[in-house]
Amino acid sequence: MTAIEHPAARRGRAARQTERLARSMETLPYLTRKLAPVEVVSTEGLEQIEHNADTLLHDVGIEIGNFPEALEIFRGAGADVTGTRVRFERGMCRKIIQASAPKVFTQRARNPKRSVVIGDPYVVLVPTYGSPFIHNLDEGRRYATIEDFRNFVKLTYMNHTLHHGGGTLCEPVDLPVNKRHIEMVYSHIRYTDKAFMGSVTHPSRAQDSVDMVKVLFGADTLDHEHVIMGLANANSPMSWDFNMLGSAKVYAENNQIMLITPFILGGAMAPVTVAASATQTLAEALAGMAFCQIVRPGAPVIFGSFASSMSMQTGAPTFGTPEPQLVLYVLAALSRRLGVPFRSGGNFTASKLPDYQAAYESAVSFMSTMQAGVNFNLHTAGWLEGGLAIGYEKFILDADQASMAGAFLDGVDLTDNGYALQAMLDGGPGQHFLGSPHTLANFETAFWRSEISNNDSFEQWQLDGSLDAAQRANLRWKRQLAEYEEPGLDEAIHEELREWMDKRRASFPDSDV
Amino acid sequence: MTAIEHPAARRGRAARQTERLARSMETLPYLTRKLAPVEVVSTEGLEQIEHNADTLLHDVGIEIGNFPEALEIFRGAGADVTGTRVRFERGMCRKIIQASAPKVFTQRARNPKRSVVIGDPYVVLVPTYGSPFIHNLDEGRRYATIEDFRNFVKLTYMNHTLHHGGGTLCEPVDLPVNKRHIEMVYSHIRYTDKAFMGSVTHPSRAQDSVDMVKVLFGADTLDHEHVIMGLANANSPMSWDFNMLGSAKVYAENNQIMLITPFILGGAMAPVTVAASATQTLAEALAGMAFCQIVRPGAPVIFGSFASSMSMQTGAPTFGTPEPQLVLYVLAALSRRLGVPFRSGGNFTASKLPDYQAAYESAVSFMSTMQAGVNFNLHTAGWLEGGLAIGYEKFILDADQASMAGAFLDGVDLTDNGYALQAMLDGGPGQHFLGSPHTLANFETAFWRSEISNNDSFEQWQLDGSLDAAQRANLRWKRQLAEYEEPGLDEAIHEELREWMDKRRASFPDSDV
Repeated sequence: MTAIEHPAARRGRAARQTERLARSMETLPYLTRKLAPVEVVSTEGLEQIEHNADTLLHDVGIEIGNFPEALEIFRGAGADVTGTRVRFERGMCRKIIQASAPKVFTQRARNPKRSVVIGDPYVVLVPTYGSPFIHNLDEGRRYATIEDFRNFVKLTYMNHTLHHGGGTLCEPVDLPVNKRHIEMVYSHIRYTDKAFMGSVTHPSRAQDSVDMVKVLFGADTLDHEHVIMGLANANSPMSWDFNMLGSAKVYAENNQIMLITPFILGGAMAPVTVAASATQTLAEALAGMAFCQIVRPGAPVIFGSFASSMSMQTGAPTFGTPEPQLVLYVLAALSRRLGVPFRSGGNFTASKLPDYQAAYESAVSFMSTMQAGVNFNLHTAGWLEGGLAIGYEKFILDADQASMAGAFLDGVDLTDNGYALQAMLDGGPGQHFLGSPHTLANFETAFWRSEISNNDSFEQWQLDGSLDAAQRANLRWKRQLAEYEEPGLDEAIHEELREWMDKRRASFPDSDV
Repeated sequence: MTAIEHPAARRGRAARQTERLARSMETLPYLTRKLAPVEVVSTEGLEQIEHNADTLLHDVGIEIGNFPEALEIFRGAGADVTGTRVRFERGMCRKIIQASAPKVFTQRARNPKRSVVIGDPYVVLVPTYGSPFIHNLDEGRRYATIEDFRNFVKLTYMNHTLHHGGGTLCEPVDLPVNKRHIEMVYSHIRYTDKAFMGSVTHPSRAQDSVDMVKVLFGADTLDHEHVIMGLANANSPMSWDFNMLGSAKVYAENNQIMLITPFILGGAMAPVTVAASATQTLAEALAGMAFCQIVRPGAPVIFGSFASSMSMQTGAPTFGTPEPQLVLYVLAALSRRLGVPFRSGGNFTASKLPDYQAAYESAVSFMSTMQAGVNFNLHTAGWLEGGLAIGYEKFILDADQASMAGAFLDGVDLTDNGYALQAMLDGGPGQHFLGSPHTLANFETAFWRSEISNNDSFEQWQLDGSLDAAQRANLRWKRQLAEYEEPGLDEAIHEELREWMDKRRASFPDSDV
């Protein structure tokens, strides 16, 4: 188990490391999956879940809170609307979605090299979303500020695992609730060149988000390109509210992307079983995605699922447990059958700090995320404390580990080079392969490697300060922020954007609701 | 994301927690898998790997170091022996194994309730093996002693996740090399009632191990029951040495269990690719398992694989990386095709302490272990630093997380209770399920739960001392050792065993080789 010096490692190591570093810093725009997704339920089981979801949509229906216009939209498409309840004929939502929702689409980034393709067989990794707190080793946990938000935009920009800038990386609670979205969208436009998400906390804020990317890309661009995404959660069970569905309407009517995600805490918002969580998620998501297609056929939607289990002692959500993993596998399969991109999973944990619990729960979640066949993976990096906090160290650690997805999803190389039969025939019993031609030809790309994990000898690790992984990550994020350079934004666009922002902010008073 | 008080949790919580604890402390003797194993390679790919392994066995053959008797054994079975090289006709080893090796067998424990069944569809979880060092939060890392060994036997005995006592839980380096096996086997016999493993460091020590269980179970018992297991690693590539194969001969001729495990550090002992590591592992294991079957047809064998990747900077082994996971999936599939139980995986890490790296690498390894379809899972709990150390806290943390395997391998419940359609129809939009009859009927068993993870609110966690997972595990192992009680051993057997040990130890001088 002791370290073995590879012969090739002795010559010009520094030069090669520099070269490797440069190469690894090139962000792949997204991953392409070769490994088949893992299925955990038979076709009959999936069909039964689909049948039951249709039963829910038909018999129970969806309650639409405080949004008469949505009721009219559903009624116009043929749904049965009684009061605020919308009921659907069997198969109606599926038919609407399959008629117009794209299976695969591109979200354009302002740097065209960083545009992402969303849908099978592609995988887009995205940072965590929505935390009111931050955590780091220096300060512990505290409320997030716009400075933290900018920091995470910058760290995401510099990170070569994360393909997409994400959205509400954290809540800048030092800004008024009704205006912080403007500063967030601006930060995504200015400090990164990756694709990103806008606001959904009120339809007017969704519209602001869309208006800002119109300044960035030109208003006409949005008619034929998808440049921003919104995330809507259902009010499970079986309800959609005005803010979420109203925001969905704004994104859809502007031909932009909606991520439709029921949020299910099993035992609270749905029955405790895996199949029931999947059934209800499917029903709620079908209604939300159909709504977007009715508003504007062809506007891209992503089928999302967020499912967690619950502590039976306290009712608190729990993560990295087997049951939500199984829900994820089932919903990924249902999404493939429906034919839309799928979002779920990430590096989830209930832990308050980047400890053993945080890592174990995160890894279990992320392994399922990879294996089930997720196309858009929100919450890839940073998530702590059930989403209440984003961790600076956790962000670095998660993104580092998630970079293994590329190698994992490549699957097993079954070419002659992969079988390497000749190399084994050329060697002999007891002869090591360190210097064999096959090893030298493949060594650089043979094994995924972490940039944070320490594989040194105990003695070397001690000499280097006996740092644990979180301490190494602490050094990393500080160095990255110190080295950050803006990607640069066209001056005229920047000025127009600042003018739009000043005018918009001045047009209504600050409010914290 | 905040804690939700479950109505049922308000009444008599203490009483129910006590009851749950009592129930959870009952060790299931082993797990039964319902979820189908995950396959990552097509049948054609597996056939090609089998073909290539046969090519290696035919063209290169196996070198047998310093063990003429083994050459004669192979020659007697029809192998081509030239010098110390043994070559096999295509399919010969497979045919020998399939003719007599059991697909499923029982290893008897001295407590019959703890006997384990090894083979599909069962899963047996076993602690880590072979570390010369221990690690804990109080002392850091130091050499292991027989006191540590006893501690881990006791902790394994008390642990309700681990089904089997394991073998060399750590190396008691305070005892002479040539006698420490006697004290280890004695500790397994006295301090636990779970099944266990004996010595393989020399055939005479394997014989001592067998002789000691003859005292425990009666000599005749071994003719029809399997009560001890040995673990043999090949000298990869393509070699078996005297100590390992000689020990295998002792276990096999006594009708006991051999775990035949090539140990492959990709790029060193085999080419760097996944398919090549799998091919060579298969070839070496086929020769080792065939040897056992020639020695005594029907003696149980387990097909083992230990594969790791390598740091391209230092040559150090790395864990929790994608490539060894893929090797594991391939070999589990090859083992199913061969028809013998499979061993691989565990909670592996290169980290020196139970930090984020340790947990992430371990979880990635363990998820693959579960999903690939491992039957006997050595290294489930405790492994640190590439196996150089067993961690007291890591042991507790790993076993805690590994307890999820039962829930995971149960797969998705597709009964009416699992679909829970009526519960969803009875509820309504916006109505939570916390108090629904379906939830109350299923809540206690609905979700796997960790006993170490903390899912409390941040404030509660702070009030409880802001402990991280490793600190909580530190309290746990100390409390368990303080509360340990011996399972009790028949006095006459104990006395006979002590006499055997005294006599045997006096029969040759201490030595550290």
